[in-house]
Amino acid sequence: MDMDYREVDGTREFVARLAHGEDWRGQIEDFARAEGIKAAFFVGLGAVQNAELWYYDQDDQEYDPMEFDEPLEIASCVGNVSLLEGEPFAHTHAVLSRRDGSTVAGHLDSATVFAGELYVRAFEQSLERVHDEPTDLDLWPL
Amino acid sequence: MDMDYREVDGTREFVARLAHGEDWRGQIEDFARAEGIKAAFFVGLGAVQNAELWYYDQDDQEYDPMEFDEPLEIASCVGNVSLLEGEPFAHTHAVLSRRDGSTVAGHLDSATVFAGELYVRAFEQSLERVHDEPTDLDLWPL
Amino acid sequence: MDMDYREVDGTREFVARLAHGEDWRGQIEDFARAEGIKAAFFVGLGAVQNAELWYYDQDDQEYDPMEFDEPLEIASCVGNVSLLEGEPFAHTHAVLSRRDGSTVAGHLDSATVFAGELYVRAFEQSLERVHDEPTDLDLWPL
Repeated sequence: MDMDYREVDGTREFVARLAHGEDWRGQIEDFARAEGIKAAFFVGLGAVQNAELWYYDQDDQEYDPMEFDEPLEIASCVGNVSLLEGEPFAHTHAVLSRRDGSTVAGHLDSATVFAGELYVRAFEQSLERVHDEPTDLDLWPL
Repeated sequence: MDMDYREVDGTREFVARLAHGEDWRGQIEDFARAEGIKAAFFVGLGAVQNAELWYYDQDDQEYDPMEFDEPLEIASCVGNVSLLEGEPFAHTHAVLSRRDGSTVAGHLDSATVFAGELYVRAFEQSLERVHDEPTDLDLWPL
Repeated sequence: MDMDYREVDGTREFVARLAHGEDWRGQIEDFARAEGIKAAFFVGLGAVQNAELWYYDQDDQEYDPMEFDEPLEIASCVGNVSLLEGEPFAHTHAVLSRRDGSTVAGHLDSATVFAGELYVRAFEQSLERVHDEPTDLDLWPL
């Protein structure tokens, strides 16, 4: 089986400085709502004061949360914006690192920003997540 | 010595949902072949059921494979498409993570997709890999 | 508080092959200077012969360096170019990996390139870093 894909038209692009003390993912969603963005990809870097990561159990088909109550660099952040039940959802994965360089990574649910920088490429199209049977995740029907 | 670079013209861009149960890298190459893409960069995120990563031994100048037969998140995926012996090759690096957030990373040779999302930016130009003496790798003469 | 952001106009885009034996970050800054780039985001992948990473101590507000004198893959590199005291500065985060897949990550200050591939998206605007009180970092007033 081949992958599903759709050609998109890049419309607007943005650089952002995330607000200190606020949630990493929530800010991206607030921004998307304010700008009417219904499809985008983004990359970013920075640092956070703490983070909650999720791991998806592929057998139980449930997210398993992990909390890291410590300052961490955001060594990499890759994600996208699409609609989930009509609202912008920022699907966000990140790799975080400590003073000794050691890392933790996963699906970033929330994190308190220390400092953060983002590039967002928004598309003309709207992408909507719908329930996918084999994975029990909300994915794009492209 | 300065880095070699070439200005490129972005032509088309795509969002994709990788097919469950199929190979991560192979799907990107099949897509590139189907769309006639000879140069692109991509970023992605998702989860896989297993992965084979390669590490390049800079002294022996050979790839050293590692197999991870376990479910892993794709916390980050950065790569590009160019031509290798006339066929699209997806040079793919990834950071993968486990239930406890611990990570493994490297050159992603293959991985069975659980779910995956990709942004691809294709260029008008064609990039071709040719053998590079000092590294014994196939690189771009720009 | 919401995040600060600015819509930017993508002007030019580049693919690059980093020079073997030279500094990863320095080459990006030399390139930006040569091309007159005052704002850009980039992603990349490759391998290095060694690396110096920095971790920002959020309490002491000082960078804490770590040296890794070993060959490492660049599993992920995300960064941007903007002006710091009038000169192009490449803010660069990276995730690096070893033969067994184990990783280190952080703010990449310097690294000797073995091989590297980069995509750079340059913007028409100029971004300048200025001192930020709460973090003691140089950030963008957007």
